[in-house]
Amino acid sequence: MNIAILGATGLVGKAMIDSLIEENIKVDKLKLFASERSLGQAINFKGKEIPIEIIKEDSFKNMDVVLGAGSKELAKECASKILEAGAVFIDNSSYFRMQEDVPLIVPEINSEDIKKHRGIIANPNCSTIISLMAINAINKLSPIESIIASTYQAVSGAGKEGLNELEEEIKNLDYKPNVFPYPIAYNCIPSIDEASEDDYTKEELKLLYESRKIMHLPDLKVTCTCVRVPTLRSHCISLSIKCKDPLNVEEVKESISKQKGVILYDDLKVKKYPMPIITANQNKVFVGRIRKDNVFDGGIALFCSGDQIRKGAAYNAVSIIKYL
Amino acid sequence: MNIAILGATGLVGKAMIDSLIEENIKVDKLKLFASERSLGQAINFKGKEIPIEIIKEDSFKNMDVVLGAGSKELAKECASKILEAGAVFIDNSSYFRMQEDVPLIVPEINSEDIKKHRGIIANPNCSTIISLMAINAINKLSPIESIIASTYQAVSGAGKEGLNELEEEIKNLDYKPNVFPYPIAYNCIPSIDEASEDDYTKEELKLLYESRKIMHLPDLKVTCTCVRVPTLRSHCISLSIKCKDPLNVEEVKESISKQKGVILYDDLKVKKYPMPIITANQNKVFVGRIRKDNVFDGGIALFCSGDQIRKGAAYNAVSIIKYL
Repeated sequence: MNIAILGATGLVGKAMIDSLIEENIKVDKLKLFASERSLGQAINFKGKEIPIEIIKEDSFKNMDVVLGAGSKELAKECASKILEAGAVFIDNSSYFRMQEDVPLIVPEINSEDIKKHRGIIANPNCSTIISLMAINAINKLSPIESIIASTYQAVSGAGKEGLNELEEEIKNLDYKPNVFPYPIAYNCIPSIDEASEDDYTKEELKLLYESRKIMHLPDLKVTCTCVRVPTLRSHCISLSIKCKDPLNVEEVKESISKQKGVILYDDLKVKKYPMPIITANQNKVFVGRIRKDNVFDGGIALFCSGDQIRKGAAYNAVSIIKYL
Repeated sequence: MNIAILGATGLVGKAMIDSLIEENIKVDKLKLFASERSLGQAINFKGKEIPIEIIKEDSFKNMDVVLGAGSKELAKECASKILEAGAVFIDNSSYFRMQEDVPLIVPEINSEDIKKHRGIIANPNCSTIISLMAINAINKLSPIESIIASTYQAVSGAGKEGLNELEEEIKNLDYKPNVFPYPIAYNCIPSIDEASEDDYTKEELKLLYESRKIMHLPDLKVTCTCVRVPTLRSHCISLSIKCKDPLNVEEVKESISKQKGVILYDDLKVKKYPMPIITANQNKVFVGRIRKDNVFDGGIALFCSGDQIRKGAAYNAVSIIKYL
């Protein structure tokens, strides 16, 4: 299989290369693309130095799959070239996610939707993937009607630059932020992405609209509050879930324990619960603090954590290749 | 007025001394108590060095008010001595909060309850004070029926030792934590205080039981998830609120803007929202991200932040003196 990666020098792009190796994807030819400032660099793949290229008219010729780890502008720009070359474009940006003829895929949840693709498959938002991985097993017990979510999102959600900014601020509290709107060291910023309808942010509405599409729940209600916190990797989400039918905690735990890609990590009394320091650099989503919700009759409250660079982006995209 | 402070060398104790000065409380005599290891120290109060004392049988003689900034064990131990001396005990620990004959007071919310005291007045939990300050104006519009809360709690909630632990961990990632159960640097810990009924933590249930008592809402439902994050001062809380009647965002903002002790700080488009770096070292609770809740019909979502050492503890306790 011939594979190309757009944005190969970023955190997600590099994690895609790692995932190709770890998942034993048979790669005959790998092409790595990035912006001009990365020209001259090369990245090691299975002992071979692959030079960074910039995108040209015929860059995608003979490629089977193109993994997009760039901006939505880059995705928009490259899509027609990729389709013309006959490759499948699996894109991590938000650009194609809500387009009706583009499947939005978390393989453990809706792999059957992959079949409907017409050349482009979208990778969902990182917090959406992690949240839905955590609650998919609940949705199997009874359709989810409502989700109230508050996120704890790591700085690497904004790429290498986000990581660097936190590091610089920790060293020098007078450092002027330019990735985040305010200093993130020792702070929480309750706003990610732009303001959108009804004073929700775009990031918050992604959980609403993407969840409806992925889970085939067109009437799902979602209140989400997205907050950046000074963690390095792995987003966490505090969730309250109401399903059509009342659920009990034991059946929920059992169902979650059987969910592929998820680790039930739940025993408050022995201090066992998901945390970024435990879930970083792993492909699995950890779920814990599972208990009855006091507000929703028969509802469930829980806390989950997953590496948003891996399962929230790169690993999810690479997994889709296996289902193609 | 003769005032004594228990636990005077801690973060809350010291902030109580600052609050006495800032609030122009007329103090004739100030006595400062701490544990033996603080003996020999003195704290400056209005230009006078006040030596640290340890508690003896007659320590509270002639005191009018004793402010408790110590553990619940210390509160329990000292209460009878304080009552015998005829002083009023305003205690910040959790020990007396849920006792029926002890008023639990946030002066801006339920100052009329102070009258019922029989020598002891309890200061609520820090997250409870900050959350209720933020939503009291909503409760005035229509009685609150349900609250779903996720917290972002600063390390100073665990005192100086919590602050020191984060600082040490930032300097040396191999530092062994002993205040928090896991490293808090670059981490989120979704568990504060001990495990309790239904796998909620005690900290989470404080918001349930204390809110019912303070707001006189015996049937209030609360789902709370308490999470420690690597911030220094000021807790944040993400809240979804359902009232008896449907509310609209504009009337909620107007009501919050009139709430004493609260600052309406809300304009997402110009990046104006509450954050720890803005609210630290202030007595006011900041409220923003006010928007319609997508799950509760006619409900409200919001995000608030307040300094849990000040309004969440010391300043709230000192304010109670004014109402006595």
